[in-house]
Amino acid sequence: MLLTRHTDYSVRVLMYLALHDSDKVTIAEVARNFTVSRNHLMKIVHRLGRLGYLNTQRGKGGGMSLAKPPESINLSDVVQDMEPTLAIMECNAVPCPIAGSCAVKIALLEARDCFLQALGHYTIADLIKNKKQLLPLLERFLA
Amino acid sequence: MLLTRHTDYSVRVLMYLALHDSDKVTIAEVARNFTVSRNHLMKIVHRLGRLGYLNTQRGKGGGMSLAKPPESINLSDVVQDMEPTLAIMECNAVPCPIAGSCAVKIALLEARDCFLQALGHYTIADLIKNKKQLLPLLERFLA
Repeated sequence: MLLTRHTDYSVRVLMYLALHDSDKVTIAEVARNFTVSRNHLMKIVHRLGRLGYLNTQRGKGGGMSLAKPPESINLSDVVQDMEPTLAIMECNAVPCPIAGSCAVKIALLEARDCFLQALGHYTIADLIKNKKQLLPLLERFLA
Repeated sequence: MLLTRHTDYSVRVLMYLALHDSDKVTIAEVARNFTVSRNHLMKIVHRLGRLGYLNTQRGKGGGMSLAKPPESINLSDVVQDMEPTLAIMECNAVPCPIAGSCAVKIALLEARDCFLQALGHYTIADLIKNKKQLLPLLERFLA
């Protein structure tokens, strides 16, 4: 049931930017503070930028910031935008003979919708309500 | 969000057995009808047996059958029993500095519980209600 690391790191980047709302944050800074690969983060940031979650500014003094208020960034949307597939089972990896008549698919779709609906109750703003606790944990390495 | 093939095939085996409730079904028969690996199915059947979902009888004329009525086999239980992990994100694959104070975990647990609760509305009996449609699709190769 694991979400991809792509989605995981996307949430971390968005939280980090929401926590540092007045700053120009660099990818290197996020990578160091979360101890994750900078190359991996670059791809994620690029995609988050294209999807309108964040703005990036190149060059010296450049960096990134959220493109919209954290209150309007929904966790369900982030998962749906970043996951490579929203399938729960690969009915057609090896073509399944009952795929066309299978009730399991319906059950899984209902369950997936419940999952996404529950995530939809949370925005990035909700996830950083404990800002005072989170900030010191993410300021080991500043830009 | 994909469940493992292990869980997928478990559901298929249980449905197959529920559809052939008076027969002694062999692993080879299920493998051929679903076009899946017999070796893979052997491991799954062994585990389903240990967990009390099915009974197996070795030797000539042997085979397997459900150990309990399909009405009492819940899809949520099968997923919980067969998935190697019920985690949604790997917070500690690379230790996350905010893991101890992270609200994302709470959101994910709520979402996972909704997912499992929705699956809990379905039993194996519900999944084979369209028995007349399913049977011809699974009888291409009989034992």
